[in-house]
Order: sequence, then C-alpha cells, then structure tokens
Amino acid sequence: MTTVFVSGASGKMGRKVVHMLQATDDLRVVGGLDRAASDAEDFPIFGDTADINVTADVWVDFTIPTAARKNAEYSLAHGFDTIIGTSGMSNDDFAALGKIAADNGRKVMIVPNFGISAVLMMQFAAKAAKYMPDAEVVEIHHSDKIDAPSGTARATAQAISKARQAKPVAPKQTDAPARGEWIDDVPVHALRLPGYVAQEEVIFGAEGESLSISQISYDRSSFMAGIRLAIRNVADLPDALTVGLDSLL
Amino acid sequence: MTTVFVSGASGKMGRKVVHMLQATDDLRVVGGLDRAASDAEDFPIFGDTADINVTADVWVDFTIPTAARKNAEYSLAHGFDTIIGTSGMSNDDFAALGKIAADNGRKVMIVPNFGISAVLMMQFAAKAAKYMPDAEVVEIHHSDKIDAPSGTARATAQAISKARQAKPVAPKQTDAPARGEWIDDVPVHALRLPGYVAQEEVIFGAEGESLSISQISYDRSSFMAGIRLAIRNVADLPDALTVGLDSLL
Amino acid sequence: MTTVFVSGASGKMGRKVVHMLQATDDLRVVGGLDRAASDAEDFPIFGDTADINVTADVWVDFTIPTAARKNAEYSLAHGFDTIIGTSGMSNDDFAALGKIAADNGRKVMIVPNFGISAVLMMQFAAKAAKYMPDAEVVEIHHSDKIDAPSGTARATAQAISKARQAKPVAPKQTDAPARGEWIDDVPVHALRLPGYVAQEEVIFGAEGESLSISQISYDRSSFMAGIRLAIRNVADLPDALTVGLDSLL
Amino acid sequence: MTTVFVSGASGKMGRKVVHMLQATDDLRVVGGLDRAASDAEDFPIFGDTADINVTADVWVDFTIPTAARKNAEYSLAHGFDTIIGTSGMSNDDFAALGKIAADNGRKVMIVPNFGISAVLMMQFAAKAAKYMPDAEVVEIHHSDKIDAPSGTARATAQAISKARQAKPVAPKQTDAPARGEWIDDVPVHALRLPGYVAQEEVIFGAEGESLSISQISYDRSSFMAGIRLAIRNVADLPDALTVGLDSLL
Repeated sequence: MTTVFVSGASGKMGRKVVHMLQATDDLRVVGGLDRAASDAEDFPIFGDTADINVTADVWVDFTIPTAARKNAEYSLAHGFDTIIGTSGMSNDDFAALGKIAADNGRKVMIVPNFGISAVLMMQFAAKAAKYMPDAEVVEIHHSDKIDAPSGTARATAQAISKARQAKPVAPKQTDAPARGEWIDDVPVHALRLPGYVAQEEVIFGAEGESLSISQISYDRSSFMAGIRLAIRNVADLPDALTVGLDSLL
Repeated sequence: MTTVFVSGASGKMGRKVVHMLQATDDLRVVGGLDRAASDAEDFPIFGDTADINVTADVWVDFTIPTAARKNAEYSLAHGFDTIIGTSGMSNDDFAALGKIAADNGRKVMIVPNFGISAVLMMQFAAKAAKYMPDAEVVEIHHSDKIDAPSGTARATAQAISKARQAKPVAPKQTDAPARGEWIDDVPVHALRLPGYVAQEEVIFGAEGESLSISQISYDRSSFMAGIRLAIRNVADLPDALTVGLDSLL
Repeated sequence: MTTVFVSGASGKMGRKVVHMLQATDDLRVVGGLDRAASDAEDFPIFGDTADINVTADVWVDFTIPTAARKNAEYSLAHGFDTIIGTSGMSNDDFAALGKIAADNGRKVMIVPNFGISAVLMMQFAAKAAKYMPDAEVVEIHHSDKIDAPSGTARATAQAISKARQAKPVAPKQTDAPARGEWIDDVPVHALRLPGYVAQEEVIFGAEGESLSISQISYDRSSFMAGIRLAIRNVADLPDALTVGLDSLL
Repeated sequence: MTTVFVSGASGKMGRKVVHMLQATDDLRVVGGLDRAASDAEDFPIFGDTADINVTADVWVDFTIPTAARKNAEYSLAHGFDTIIGTSGMSNDDFAALGKIAADNGRKVMIVPNFGISAVLMMQFAAKAAKYMPDAEVVEIHHSDKIDAPSGTARATAQAISKARQAKPVAPKQTDAPARGEWIDDVPVHALRLPGYVAQEEVIFGAEGESLSISQISYDRSSFMAGIRLAIRNVADLPDALTVGLDSLL
C-alpha cells in the first residue's frame, strides 16, 4: 500500500485524481491541500502547509506552477517523494527542486504530460527517426485551441530532429501558408476543426515503405494511468530530479 | 462493340491504353496515330492525320496539349467522338474544340484526371461541405514532387469553398511555415516524403462528429477504369463539350 | 420562425434538443410532452396528449418506439408534421403512420440516425460501390458495446451490396475468427477497444487506387445539426412518409 | 570498406541487392554464386561453392531455404559472416547453423523480414502493449494474397500477447465471420482488396486515449535499407546466431 497526499485536492484535476486513488487497491489518499480546508472527504484537506499533520509516501501536486514550487519545497523537506503535474515550470524551478530533493534524500518528478499514448508516440518517433529520417507531423485540435502547433507536436518535432541527421529542404515561401510551422527542420502541420479533441500523427517515409504513429486524447481520464505509474515508481527513480514520464516507460 | 482510335499510341500512356483496350471485350482498337508509323501491332499506326484511312466511334488522345488540339480538330471533323486526356489545355482550347464538336454533331470530352477515386473524393467533399463547412485538406506526395499543393488538392479546396458559406479564421503568420497553402479559405497541408506516391485526405469536423474522405493513387493503372468509362459513355453526353469525368459519375 | 413541440421533453435527449432549439434563432419551442407535467421552462410541458392546448409546425419525438407511435397518431391528426427519432420502429409502424399522415395531409419522418456524417458516409459508400465494387467495412466502438457489427456498419454493408454487382470470395472458415461478419457479401470487421466512442471506415480498393470514407461520432451533440435540418425541411418532403435523413442530404 | 559475396546473385532479389551494393560507397561486391556462372558483371559469379576462389567479409544469401542452409555451411566454414534472407528455415536449421558459426568464430544472421518499418512496428507494438494492453490488428493486402492473416500480422499479435497480461473476451461465434483470426487472444482482422500492396495497423485503446502504429510496404526496395544495416553490423553481433533484424534496431 502506497500512501498519497494530494495538493490541489479540490481542483478539477485534483478531484479526479482523488477518485482514481480511492478506486485503486494499492494506493490510499491520506490527506490533501487546498485553499479551502475541509473534512468532507474521508481524509483531511488542509488549508495551508503549516497545518499539515499527516505524512505520506508520495505528494502529488495539481496546482499552478508558482504554488507547486512552494508546495514542493515543503513536501521534499518533510519526507514526501513529490510528483508535480504542470507544464509551466522553468529550468530554474527544475534545478532548485532537484537540489532540495537531493539534499533531503528524496525524489522529485515533474511531468508536463501524463498521457501514456503521447509519451510512447514521442519515444517511438525518436527511435524511428534514426532509421527513417524523413518525417512530418500532423496534429488536429479543436478549433478553439488558439496556439499552434501544439506543445506535444513541438516536442515531437524536436525529438525527431535530435535523433536524426537528415535535413529536408524547406519549402518556398508562400503569401498564404496553411497553419503549421517548420520546427527544427521537421514540418509540423496544424489543423483546427470543430468536433476534434486532440490528436497527433507522425508520418515517416522511406524508399518503398512508410511508418505512421498516431495518438488521440479524448479527455483527462487518459492521464490517470500515467499518474498511477508515476506514484508507484517515483521512489525507485535513479535521480533526485526527473522530468517527464519518459524514463518510466 | 465500340471501336477506338488511339492518338499517341506509342507513348507511355498510349501503350498502356492499347493494352487495356485489347483486354476489354466490348472495345476494339482499329488504328493509332504516332510520329513513328508502324504495322507492328494488329492495327495500323499512322504517322500523320493526312494518312489516316480508318474511322472509329471514339478517338482518344494521350499526347501533349498543342498536338491534342490539332488532332482533335481533325477527329471531330471526321466523325470521331473525341476524348482528350491531358491537364494542360486552356479555356480557349475548350471553347474552340466545343464549337467544332457542336458544328459537326460530335462530342468532345477533356479529362485532366481519369482517376475515379480522385473524382469521387472531390464530389463527396463538395457535397459534405454543404453540411459540414469546416474542412481541411492534407495531401502527401513523393518528395520528388516539386510543386505544392498538388493540382488535385487545389481543385478539392476550390470545390469545398464553392459549396459552402463558412470562412474560417486564417492563422497568424509565422516566419517558418510548413509546406501548404490557404486556398480559397481552405487550409491545404502538403507533405513530401519518400516512399509515398500520391494521396489526399479531406477532413471535416463538426459539433460532436467528423468525416474524412481519403484517396490513394498507386500508379497509372488506376486511370484505365476511368478511360473505359469515358469511351463507353462519350456518345451519350448531353453537351458538345464536357470537361472532367465528373458528369459520368 | 418555425414552432416546435418536443415529445419526451424531460428525457436525456429531449433536454438536449430543447437547449438546441432555444439557442437557434429561427426555431422556437412552444410546448413539450412528458410523463411529469411541468411549468419550470418558458414553455408548458404536458403530462398527457389529452391535456395539450398548443399547436406547432413540427412535432419531434424522442421517446421509446411504442410511445412514439401512439404520440404520432395524435400529432399527425392534430396538424403537426412529425419527426420521430428512434431506431426501433417496425415496418408495420412505418405503414400505419404513413397512412395517417397521408389522410391528414401531413408529413411524418422517422429517423433512426440523425448523425449527418454517418448518413453522408453511407450515401458516399453506396455511390462509390458502383464504380469501385471491392469494399470492406471496419468499425470501432467502445469495448462496452456488446452487439457487433454496429447497426450503422450493417446498414453500410447492405447499401454497398445493393449498389454493386460484385461478389467477393468468402474466406475459408477458421475455428477462431476475429469479431466481424460477412454481411451481404461485404466483410465487416468489428473492433472493441476502450477509449474509442464510435467510428466506422469504408475502404474501397481498385486497380492502382483506393478510396476510404470514415466517420467518427464523439457524442450526441452530433445529432443536433441533423435534427435542425429535419425540422426545417419536414414540411417540404415530397412523400407523406420518409424514413431516414438521407433524402434531405 | 566492407566486402560482400552475394549468393543467388542472378535471382530477382539477388540482382536488386547487387545494384544496391554497387550504389553504396562503403560496400563492395566481390563475388556471387548462382547456378549459371557468369563473368558479365564486374565481379565473378561462380556456379558452385567448389569453384569459389574469393573471400569477403560478409556472405548474403537470397536463395531458397534448402540451398541457403547448404551454402551457409560452406560460407561459415570459410571465413564469411553470413546473412540469410529467407523466411522458410526451421528451428533445426537455426540450431545447426548457429553451432557451425560458433565453432568457426563467425556470426550467422537469419532475417525473415528486412523491412525496417515492419520490424519497428512490431517493437513499438510490444512495448505499447505493456502499458495499453487492449489491442487489435488490422492488415490489408492485395486480393491475390491467399493466406490470411499475414505472417507479419500473426507475429505482431504474438508479440503483443507475450508483452501483456490482459485477455479480452472472445466474440460470440457467427456463421459468417469476416476474414480474420483470434491469435493468442489478439483479434487480427484481414482485408483483401485490389489496389493495396501490404499494410498493417495496430490499434491500442485505453481510458480516454488511443494509440495506433501503422506500416505500409510498397515494394521490395524497402528491404534494401535493412540489408545494408545487417551487412554493416553482422560482425559486431554478440551471439553466433541471430534471428531477425530486431536486435539491430
């Protein structure tokens, strides 16, 4: 049985995580942190780190970056291995928390994306790029998503670029390009359409063959398997600081 | 039994068409035209229109646009319904040949693309766009193809645009766009990868659902079904001039 | 402005339809029918047809088949063109309601599937099958869906079969087949996987080319566009009885 | 510069391999074996192993299994690391050749499939199955392919099954199943359509997400990259006997 403390326990994501933990046999929630303290659940929710009077094997944090850093400074110093599920942390945050973890003999894991299919897709794409260097990325998101290409598509392009030598010829400029970007010499095409949630495909072509890896995220329930995996394995990570789910897959 | 005369009979495409006709029960080649006259086949190949001493129900032409127009001026005046398989003709050519056909009580059909799957895809895309106006086009061709987007993708975008009212918001400009173009308010993404031949996908998104129509052309053998269809039906076309295979599908 | 009466107004689907109508400028809800009468909305909900004291251009029904037939007997006799959104009606129901509609100078439309992308897919598949008779269907649904193949896949196979002459050779029997069925000489493959909602692909192959039409339904919000279309056009249908959305697309 | 001896040099595959080697800077053909001896190429082709008077770093064999085993008995005893590109060898052949290689301090590599995209797909599928155990395989081949499912699809299903614990519920029997098979508890769907060459997709579904890996083989030119990879690395393999390209990727 691994005990877990949930920071941001009453937030949208925190509540989902709590429900998942309550439904998982080998994991148990023993406390939470949230601005509004509460006894409504079968575990205490504290309003401030100063009030916390429980301990747990793992601290998981689903708040915003600034709060998450401050919380982790507490948790790492108080015996919790710590998992932070946010994408907005800086390299400075990484370094600072890694040092605190090392000084306290703890592990800190910062995970921008808990989606296992997305992490596997990036791993597979990086490996395939070594043998099939010609690759393009096509991502589709809902038309409400303003930024393009998506962060995952950008990270995939960078992973492909790092894994290969090839540099394709960039296209001629046009006055009216479609949505997309030439990222580290990998063409990334971004589609924005109603109905779609979030998906990405990486397409490799080589003489006489092609390979495609694609991934769809329907909703945040897809993160739960990744969160479980992180909680179960954070204590055994080799380094004090780990970024991303990659090293667990 | 429909008799057929093949102009450009010794060219790459002409030879394929001759073989197809010889393998088709209800069609028969009775003559050909090619710079190099020949008796090698079981039908005569004439070196010049002046030498032609046979007639046929249908004249099919697989030469270059300039030759095709001159040839058709002969064929339409000499009793052949005429099918021209080239993509380079001008509106002026269309009008001139349509007039000659009408004056001689014949039919002329000018077909830039005999691929049935491509023509169906464009028809379906135009129809779907009436009910699901949000659409994007993704085409993939071999990396040797220099122009982008492909002619078929361009035509598809125009057909979608014509069939609908919607105008999506154009993306912000970027210094390094991926290959593609914003054509008549339809985003067209062009991928260039080794291994691939020629394919296109049209993706429609709407509230709670999506529809995709995609088409692959592996080689020119895909044109034969369209050529057979044109030969069998050219005589019954309603107008003296018909452009594209569309009206037969 | 078209006025609409919603039968089954307090049910899962009925409530969604009411919200859609309230958000649509040219449509207005003027009354509803549901076991539990209510004045909570800005229109009256009657508990029984005997109590109804409003009229409307169109009656839409989202109840179960037995109730829907009884309701439609009332609505067609009281001046409502009637749209029934259920998939369980019998040929006997069709005939009976068609006769009542004709006798009263009204239109009745029975629509098993309001999803526009699914209806378009079936139309396109039927047309493509005329020119590319070799086709297979692959459908994917959530692993909780017990019946296989899906009703839409079954209907697609039947539409393909009806539109073509070809009969492919059935496979040798195996002791352990994958999920799927040989329907009217069209192979239909059924996949059941967690994460997926409902999707279907029809794949056509021919010499040198292929064509694929695929469709995804994410949730019932996809039915709203089809319901709007039916409400706006039911009065202008040529026949007293119409089954399916097909004739409006 | 690695020197190469090509067994089956005048066969369909052998000739393609010779051309590839001649176009590759760091590889050089120094001799060949084929029933019909010849001096036509810029290297000698011997009619019998007894006549061979050259040596090379690597022996590659593209003959039939019985000939390949006999040839390899010669090559491994005469200083050649040996690569055999055939899918018909038995476990007995594997063991016998492995022993000869070990006794002579040489390496033997037996590769049923040189297609890099297919080998990567199987590797990725096996890895993904550990985290997303619900998977199905869909393969499409030309309608002339009689056996179904394909060997690659069968091997993929076995790899998925081996990598995971999950066992999905087998479907109810039907009198007319579609083409496909339930292989080691993995449903494999087989499509046979004209136009298609050879392709396979592995689809994984999990709560809220899905992952798909797909691969297309257009023609045998796709094997050349795998053959080059094997030639360049066979000498450094850890074991005397290696089956499959897997350990080089």
